[in-house]
Amino acid sequence: MFNSFVTRYWFSSEARSLWSDSSTLQAWLDVEAALASAQAEIGLIPADAAATIASKADAKFFDTEALAHEIAFAQHPLVPVLHRFESLCGEPHAGYLHFGATTQNIFDTATALQVRRTHALLASDLRGAMEALAQLARAHRETPMAGRTHGQHALPMTLGFKIAGWLEELGRDLERLDARLAPSFPACMGGAIGTFAAMGGQGREVEALVASKLGLEPAGLPSRASFDRAADYIGALALLAGTAQKIAGDVVFLQRTEVGELSEAFHVGKVGSSTMAQKRNPSTALLLVSLARMLRGRVPLALEAMVRMDEGDSSATNVTDTLLPELGILAASVAQTLSRLVRGLVVHPEAMRRNLAATQGLINAEAVMMELTKVMGRHEAHKLLLEAAQRTHTEGCSFLASIMEHPSAAAYPSANRLAEALDPGTYIGDSVRLTDEAVSRISPRAR
Amino acid sequence: MFNSFVTRYWFSSEARSLWSDSSTLQAWLDVEAALASAQAEIGLIPADAAATIASKADAKFFDTEALAHEIAFAQHPLVPVLHRFESLCGEPHAGYLHFGATTQNIFDTATALQVRRTHALLASDLRGAMEALAQLARAHRETPMAGRTHGQHALPMTLGFKIAGWLEELGRDLERLDARLAPSFPACMGGAIGTFAAMGGQGREVEALVASKLGLEPAGLPSRASFDRAADYIGALALLAGTAQKIAGDVVFLQRTEVGELSEAFHVGKVGSSTMAQKRNPSTALLLVSLARMLRGRVPLALEAMVRMDEGDSSATNVTDTLLPELGILAASVAQTLSRLVRGLVVHPEAMRRNLAATQGLINAEAVMMELTKVMGRHEAHKLLLEAAQRTHTEGCSFLASIMEHPSAAAYPSANRLAEALDPGTYIGDSVRLTDEAVSRISPRAR
Amino acid sequence: MFNSFVTRYWFSSEARSLWSDSSTLQAWLDVEAALASAQAEIGLIPADAAATIASKADAKFFDTEALAHEIAFAQHPLVPVLHRFESLCGEPHAGYLHFGATTQNIFDTATALQVRRTHALLASDLRGAMEALAQLARAHRETPMAGRTHGQHALPMTLGFKIAGWLEELGRDLERLDARLAPSFPACMGGAIGTFAAMGGQGREVEALVASKLGLEPAGLPSRASFDRAADYIGALALLAGTAQKIAGDVVFLQRTEVGELSEAFHVGKVGSSTMAQKRNPSTALLLVSLARMLRGRVPLALEAMVRMDEGDSSATNVTDTLLPELGILAASVAQTLSRLVRGLVVHPEAMRRNLAATQGLINAEAVMMELTKVMGRHEAHKLLLEAAQRTHTEGCSFLASIMEHPSAAAYPSANRLAEALDPGTYIGDSVRLTDEAVSRISPRAR
Amino acid sequence: MFNSFVTRYWFSSEARSLWSDSSTLQAWLDVEAALASAQAEIGLIPADAAATIASKADAKFFDTEALAHEIAFAQHPLVPVLHRFESLCGEPHAGYLHFGATTQNIFDTATALQVRRTHALLASDLRGAMEALAQLARAHRETPMAGRTHGQHALPMTLGFKIAGWLEELGRDLERLDARLAPSFPACMGGAIGTFAAMGGQGREVEALVASKLGLEPAGLPSRASFDRAADYIGALALLAGTAQKIAGDVVFLQRTEVGELSEAFHVGKVGSSTMAQKRNPSTALLLVSLARMLRGRVPLALEAMVRMDEGDSSATNVTDTLLPELGILAASVAQTLSRLVRGLVVHPEAMRRNLAATQGLINAEAVMMELTKVMGRHEAHKLLLEAAQRTHTEGCSFLASIMEHPSAAAYPSANRLAEALDPGTYIGDSVRLTDEAVSRISPRAR
Repeated sequence: MFNSFVTRYWFSSEARSLWSDSSTLQAWLDVEAALASAQAEIGLIPADAAATIASKADAKFFDTEALAHEIAFAQHPLVPVLHRFESLCGEPHAGYLHFGATTQNIFDTATALQVRRTHALLASDLRGAMEALAQLARAHRETPMAGRTHGQHALPMTLGFKIAGWLEELGRDLERLDARLAPSFPACMGGAIGTFAAMGGQGREVEALVASKLGLEPAGLPSRASFDRAADYIGALALLAGTAQKIAGDVVFLQRTEVGELSEAFHVGKVGSSTMAQKRNPSTALLLVSLARMLRGRVPLALEAMVRMDEGDSSATNVTDTLLPELGILAASVAQTLSRLVRGLVVHPEAMRRNLAATQGLINAEAVMMELTKVMGRHEAHKLLLEAAQRTHTEGCSFLASIMEHPSAAAYPSANRLAEALDPGTYIGDSVRLTDEAVSRISPRAR
Repeated sequence: MFNSFVTRYWFSSEARSLWSDSSTLQAWLDVEAALASAQAEIGLIPADAAATIASKADAKFFDTEALAHEIAFAQHPLVPVLHRFESLCGEPHAGYLHFGATTQNIFDTATALQVRRTHALLASDLRGAMEALAQLARAHRETPMAGRTHGQHALPMTLGFKIAGWLEELGRDLERLDARLAPSFPACMGGAIGTFAAMGGQGREVEALVASKLGLEPAGLPSRASFDRAADYIGALALLAGTAQKIAGDVVFLQRTEVGELSEAFHVGKVGSSTMAQKRNPSTALLLVSLARMLRGRVPLALEAMVRMDEGDSSATNVTDTLLPELGILAASVAQTLSRLVRGLVVHPEAMRRNLAATQGLINAEAVMMELTKVMGRHEAHKLLLEAAQRTHTEGCSFLASIMEHPSAAAYPSANRLAEALDPGTYIGDSVRLTDEAVSRISPRAR
Repeated sequence: MFNSFVTRYWFSSEARSLWSDSSTLQAWLDVEAALASAQAEIGLIPADAAATIASKADAKFFDTEALAHEIAFAQHPLVPVLHRFESLCGEPHAGYLHFGATTQNIFDTATALQVRRTHALLASDLRGAMEALAQLARAHRETPMAGRTHGQHALPMTLGFKIAGWLEELGRDLERLDARLAPSFPACMGGAIGTFAAMGGQGREVEALVASKLGLEPAGLPSRASFDRAADYIGALALLAGTAQKIAGDVVFLQRTEVGELSEAFHVGKVGSSTMAQKRNPSTALLLVSLARMLRGRVPLALEAMVRMDEGDSSATNVTDTLLPELGILAASVAQTLSRLVRGLVVHPEAMRRNLAATQGLINAEAVMMELTKVMGRHEAHKLLLEAAQRTHTEGCSFLASIMEHPSAAAYPSANRLAEALDPGTYIGDSVRLTDEAVSRISPRAR
Repeated sequence: MFNSFVTRYWFSSEARSLWSDSSTLQAWLDVEAALASAQAEIGLIPADAAATIASKADAKFFDTEALAHEIAFAQHPLVPVLHRFESLCGEPHAGYLHFGATTQNIFDTATALQVRRTHALLASDLRGAMEALAQLARAHRETPMAGRTHGQHALPMTLGFKIAGWLEELGRDLERLDARLAPSFPACMGGAIGTFAAMGGQGREVEALVASKLGLEPAGLPSRASFDRAADYIGALALLAGTAQKIAGDVVFLQRTEVGELSEAFHVGKVGSSTMAQKRNPSTALLLVSLARMLRGRVPLALEAMVRMDEGDSSATNVTDTLLPELGILAASVAQTLSRLVRGLVVHPEAMRRNLAATQGLINAEAVMMELTKVMGRHEAHKLLLEAAQRTHTEGCSFLASIMEHPSAAAYPSANRLAEALDPGTYIGDSVRLTDEAVSRISPRAR
């Protein structure tokens, strides 16, 4: 999927590169080198062994095709790499490679490095998206449009207010991801079962030093049977996917042929259909929905794989070791696609006005109710309007007329005030203030 | 399921009660009363209206059976309740009830109250479980047992170390839940679409005051289309479920007829089977696995329901409004069952010793390897032991003999040192130190 | 959720009753009675014991509240029921109760009885829904409306054709469920591990006779560790949920304020909002989406619970024993709600015409392309129209003009023919024929 | 994941090749050629156009790297391929390419071809696995071992019986997949919205002819908004995953260091650990668990993607178009790995006997109960044995002694008969007969 000639362009090419074979191998080698270096500093292995190991820790010395065959034969993902690494280092230094560590230590720590880089991509695109949205919200802080609930017009609001809701949710998504990155992906050097058994009592110090060299936190109790930390970050990715799909879904609807309030960027050469020449599909928004589903749909796999037998369980780590690259690429692609989508949004305020006016005032029923509460109870006003609205629905007459002709409306003195209340631009509540606040809350974060 | 005569006992009765019809109704009434009280303080409605509303806000004045019928007819979950409430309040106070709020505001805020109470139950049971585990870990900080990876003996460790891993994960689970509770479930008073349109420009203040009266945080931008905050807490519940299932799975295995290292509490009168009299099943652990799956299995529904149309969408809120009670009861029951399980655990150190000895020293292969690295490289030692272990597997001879008879072992001077390295009690690494640290980290939290 | 005063009306009351405590208990008793009766016929137990057992196999002799307490103490779901049953039968007949069976045999077979009854409800509502849809499709076989893809107008079609697609999918759903019911829920009498060990070599015959008495198929190899058969029916429920959600989603969209092509039934007294009097929400369609999600969302739990340890595993059967009642009620409620939705649908052909006309002919671009292929290649025609459509999008001029003024159109002789091709009622393809065929395929099944 | 140098060997290389870029492109071209050929036969397009199209329908004429760039620019997955194809065909034949079809028609029909080939691989490996299992079952039809429920010894059985359970489930899995393949993946040629609008009233005939040329069934009503058919096959894959994971889980447990009843194939050069030389992990079984999870975990995505807007919805088809290749490769790999696993299984009957004997007769409690029912009621016998078993559990004395010394056992005349009943090899029920029947049912299918 990520490499297919058909769908490759859906995905962030930077993220794909961060998880390529050579990047993965390099991350392993970096971790082995950091381990040797830390052990040399602490005095567990000779300093020149560490130096040799560091000098050979370069993916260009390895042939991944050959390794693929050896891995298949050994049915072990790291030992063939170590054999090659050993022969690069030569005796006696080869003997100090991978000292006291277990395979999963290397993989988990290398993955932490790759996730950190992927997070940087993701966060940058999210910040870009938020900045673009903040500009749009500011520009349209007073542009009136229909607010909708349950698929029907509800109350007027402004486009700024709508975007403010997106912004707030995205802001929380990014905060969560930022906060969880470091604790979710620590350096682990506990050895076969996490007891540091092969580190001569200095394992904790080795782990801390490796972590510091690689810019990570140490795992502390380096259990291979615990995945809750990574799963917590993955959970935050699921929330990001939810937000992205919500925004994309809104765009798809607002671009509907009948609605036409927003449209996504179009360029000459973009094709909507192999057969229908008129088509301008919201293809970026639809793709974003798809990517969000792919991302969110993989999260239960991660949650299930938290459940691990005993002190280590490859039936679970096989799943998560291959899931994290997928999640990383998908998440970065969600952020990238979201950023592209929102940067290209075109607003059609005239369509917003047309749609607001389409119901002859019904969208302002609550405004009238609040006006009527000056002379009657909220519940009586609601009943009156329920009946008046029904007449408008059934007979097609204007809502103002239906109200004024309702017997209970006799108590109400001013048709003018009602007509004002029925003006669809007027009942936007705190839309503007809420927009401004959301924009100002987000803006420092977005820069 | 929660009320069935067959399975009722699986679930926390306190949690079931917190989400009963009358508790739910009472929570709605409490929110309506707090809203009226806040609006009176701010001057939006008369003080005596608020007082009357407060005095009638008692579920005992309402007949939920009658309401159920009216709700079915109106196809609206709150309006019939409001009608009854209005007739209890009488004119003119009835007119100030539910002023400027929308149904979902009441529901979301009431749910926040119920979740907060459920969280207290859950947290208390988790702390209890952690305390019991901390005691067990302390008592068995040095009790040796086999560490296992991929379903096979790996290295020796202590029971304390194993439990330390459980403790750390539970500690993180509880921290996450504690930290997310308040921000995940704020008070929302934004009205129909979140613009505070019917609060005369003072909606933000009303919301803040309602929140403060109810011990909640205000929502800020009170979007009904955002569910990321609640979903974040729900995600943390999924992690708790993962931890609980991991622990329960370990217990089920360690109680296996052939393993016998742990067993769960048994009382006379507990029945294992309607037909096999000998059965002592780990039924609490198996139930815990089941509850954890039920909890975890509902999380994708919550994630999917983050995706909401426009400014409000009952196709999603229908799901989450009914999901939260289920998640609450399940989570409290997971915590309660976990607490019961770990309090009743019986340890069989003699079985642990027997199992450690069962492989004639193979479990200590790494210990020997680290010993041999004093005279050869790590990789050469690994190769030697690979061949010796294979001979022991195939011919059934002792591992010590296989090693000593291996040609490459000639270089190694001391059979005694090897025999020592092969003693299964000796190679427990930092088990004890890691146990002590985990216990001390957890203990303050657990009290 | 199923019993809450707020949401009870969402669910089929018949289905709720089929899975009530007393129905469940009665199903257990029926299975025990059938077992005794079969064993008496075969000569394994005395005939008068079977007669006594049958005479006491009535839920009214049992107190489910008392049983709930005993079950909690024994931590076993059936043994307390058997104790009460034994004391009802008296000596010596009590000794022949539950002879050679294990608890899970009784539960699985009883569940089969309850599922069969639930299926009948579900199938009846589905057939009702299909009949209503077939009528609607017939009535609107020629009513033109916009076909839409990717959220944009694509080609014209008829409402009949749209409904034909719903019908075909529903028809397949029902066929699948009908075909899988019997094999998915057989009678199982294999005893503790499925070997019929306690049936003296006649277990297979006992099982076949029990099955025949209860109207079920025998399990054959009655493994308690196999759940694939039930899971297959559950999978078909997930497909039904998918279809229902698709239809409901279409209705929600077609009732959108801006679209207005369909609306769901409205009655005076139905309330859309506690605050917005004008609201007529598609609440049945939205509820159907919710129910479908709840149903579909539980399916992964069933799939996961296929994976069972050894010969029996309560960590899985706890989940599926409680899941099947939920799935049953949800599925029956999906079918009932779908039936209610489609019976109440109101069609607005004038809105369909209005929307068809809204794009000045663009929706017929393909029709023009096929017309132009009479004088040029399909790909050249596509290119011409791509450019013409873009001009219409950008400049707002009519599509006919854009085409005629395009240089490549010079080759095309007849503006009249193009104008005809651009008439949105004319390019409906085989809509009518496909409608008629779908209706005729479904109709016999629907009766 | 599928191409990574680390994990590539997990996956069926044949399946990977069936879904490679060039195979996918070739399948598209084959469908276009079949369409042209069918249209020529029916007279819709010139015969020489179809001949030219067929002659150019070869992936080797296309440069997928170049296409990848053009697709990214057009944001359309097929149009760039068509452009290249047109230029290969030249005028005027190019104009008859893709005549009346829409992109999704080509994709769905091509996918059907690829799924059919993948199914053949999968079915062949499943048949191979079943044959190997049938041999093993036959060989061990009488080999006694412990049957286990809820993680504890339950009753004796034979290995043959255990395998018979696996076989039956696999047999049903394969039957389901075989039966669903053709109806689930038909040829679809309905055009943009499924009305055959651009086929001049002969679309149905074109579709039928295309289907027949490609060895597929015609879709009938070729809705792009229906995915239930494919989802039904995918559901059957989920069941296969469940079966595979169940079998693999059993193997992992039976190979546990303490249990040792089965072990999977080992070869010199297979590495268990980078640090623990003794390790012989059940790595194939653990991998099978992982693959099964990856397969099963993707199924909810397919179910969710059944829900499609209107007449076509790329937010869903993007997901399923990329999901089907993944599911295909995973399913083939599950079958291949299962086949490898079961072919390599080594049985240790002596460990089975040792484990059977480990509980001093407790495993035969039911046998004694059935023996005692000759002189007392089933329930009295159960009570007696409950107490005797408890004494054995607590005091460690033999079960026979506990029983004989129980006061109620005085009525029972023969210690010999009890001792016989306690012989763990004797109470295997119908294990042998059920094994033979399962083997004979499967065998014709397996050949």
